Amino acid sequence: MDRILLDAGSGGKASHRLIHDLFFRLLDNDYLTRMDDAALLPVSGPVAVSTDGFTVSPLFFPGGDIGALAVHGTVNDVAMLGARPRFLTAAFIIEEGFLVADLERIVTSMAKAAKEAGVLVVAGDTKVVPKGAADGMFITTTGIGEVLAQPAPSGHRARPGDAVLVSGFLGDHGLAIMASREGLSFDVPVVSDCASLNGLVEAVLAAVPEVHVLRDPTRGGLITTLNEIAAQSGVEIQVEEAAVPVRPEVASGCSFLGLDPLYLANEGKLVCLVPEAHGDAALAALRAHPLGRHAARIGTAKAGPSRVVITTPLGGQRLADMLEGEQLPRIC
Amino acid sequence: MDRILLDAGSGGKASHRLIHDLFFRLLDNDYLTRMDDAALLPVSGPVAVSTDGFTVSPLFFPGGDIGALAVHGTVNDVAMLGARPRFLTAAFIIEEGFLVADLERIVTSMAKAAKEAGVLVVAGDTKVVPKGAADGMFITTTGIGEVLAQPAPSGHRARPGDAVLVSGFLGDHGLAIMASREGLSFDVPVVSDCASLNGLVEAVLAAVPEVHVLRDPTRGGLITTLNEIAAQSGVEIQVEEAAVPVRPEVASGCSFLGLDPLYLANEGKLVCLVPEAHGDAALAALRAHPLGRHAARIGTAKAGPSRVVITTPLGGQRLADMLEGEQLPRIC
Repeated sequence: MDRILLDAGSGGKASHRLIHDLFFRLLDNDYLTRMDDAALLPVSGPVAVSTDGFTVSPLFFPGGDIGALAVHGTVNDVAMLGARPRFLTAAFIIEEGFLVADLERIVTSMAKAAKEAGVLVVAGDTKVVPKGAADGMFITTTGIGEVLAQPAPSGHRARPGDAVLVSGFLGDHGLAIMASREGLSFDVPVVSDCASLNGLVEAVLAAVPEVHVLRDPTRGGLITTLNEIAAQSGVEIQVEEAAVPVRPEVASGCSFLGLDPLYLANEGKLVCLVPEAHGDAALAALRAHPLGRHAARIGTAKAGPSRVVITTPLGGQRLADMLEGEQLPRIC
Repeated sequence: MDRILLDAGSGGKASHRLIHDLFFRLLDNDYLTRMDDAALLPVSGPVAVSTDGFTVSPLFFPGGDIGALAVHGTVNDVAMLGARPRFLTAAFIIEEGFLVADLERIVTSMAKAAKEAGVLVVAGDTKVVPKGAADGMFITTTGIGEVLAQPAPSGHRARPGDAVLVSGFLGDHGLAIMASREGLSFDVPVVSDCASLNGLVEAVLAAVPEVHVLRDPTRGGLITTLNEIAAQSGVEIQVEEAAVPVRPEVASGCSFLGLDPLYLANEGKLVCLVPEAHGDAALAALRAHPLGRHAARIGTAKAGPSRVVITTPLGGQRLADMLEGEQLPRIC
């Protein structure tokens, strides 16, 4: 059988074959293969929980695929609470006729991403919908982690004086998806940054006694994330545009397409706010990690209205609000 | 705005309006409205976790809708581990152009079901895909519960001699969906049984010191569930067909449509295996609960090959295997 048929989601024999022959083989662990209605996990509270649906198009893109993304994205959301992600659940909604080889490639990629991040996929579900009722495949993952830092980093904890850091180049994921979807190529290939950031988070937490905010700037990009933090904490966030790391090829690709890299999704970057006194230590900890080599301090939180103000390279200032409308659908 | 547009899934202003004006208003609780990347939950381990994707068609059906179903289904999977469901996450994948009024009706229904089951929806995600990329709406819920019974009931714990009970009439949900989809009506209306069974589970656990197996016979129905238990525990399960509760209108509807109610999905029923000595107490506990009034003992587990054997009303015996093929897609 080279395509997924409706009966693979029936709960009957074909479902069981798919579960045993593909999911259990690739994601093998004792929690999953017990096959009870729920998995029993040895975590003690408080636990951090996050869920995300993935609808990215195309399913395979430079630097990753929907399977890797579904692991990285949820691992990162859990990690942003200063927690250690330990378990994932994964629910697949698959269009009838989907290639089994593509499913195998996607689940293999999930397994690899999960192993690298140190998480186990402990429960799952598969539904198959008739041809035309979904576009290929959607995956929803939920992550469960153990809290490492108390109080946990939160968008509510930014304080005037905090240093604002990012862990590396922005906009790679968004532009890679856009280019892949539109069949564009650049002289220097643009590749998604998708990666699990839990190791990077642990490095920062170990280096700095007080991390106020951790957040990954996915949909809506850096500016949307900073606006959320400004609103939640009641601070003004000032950003030096020239300090924000953007690869030259991403800057020129965005310029060509009329996109702003500061609003483009990232899947392997974090924003970090720490008290001014710990700014240098946090930056050093980020840069010492392979996923944070290009980290930079990009600004400062101030007492002021809840907003994001960008200082341009020429010294001008402008408000940077969240976007109205949709710059780029199905980015994650 | 009366329809969901693509930008409602963008992460920008339209996303934030939808989250605040609809989801937070209807599902209000402190965990959810904190709006961090993950929720921090005060549970003590071990925890039971389950995930399920819901793709039911039509979205509204006699006795429920996809929102109620997404709560009941996952609450039940967690409860079947002998756990008390406490928290849910919900990820929505919505087709562009979906009616806001329908979304509001569905989320209202989730809120009501969650309240009745005593669970909080603590984290969520919304993606909007272009028209034609999904059929209306899919919801994936993940449930987290605290374990009440140790060792937990499991499909692996059936033992020869166990009494096999069901909590009520079988096949209602599957036939209701089928009839609704095909525009069929019966003299006596058939309504989905969808309901959260955590209260019923707690009643049984309180009445009986040792519950070997709890499972809700959803996709694939009673026979599929019994086959799973037989395979996991290495027992033969014998069922008296005449003892299985099926409403007369469901029996006749199934007969008309060529369906077997024992393979039809249920969304508010459970199968329970307990040692023979506790069979009567378990049955009494089920019957004393409003959701178990029509509970019945339907059979016995025996030493023997892993299979399900049905004794017909005339005394004949037949093997009842899982189905090949798909009887009824998009039932949940």
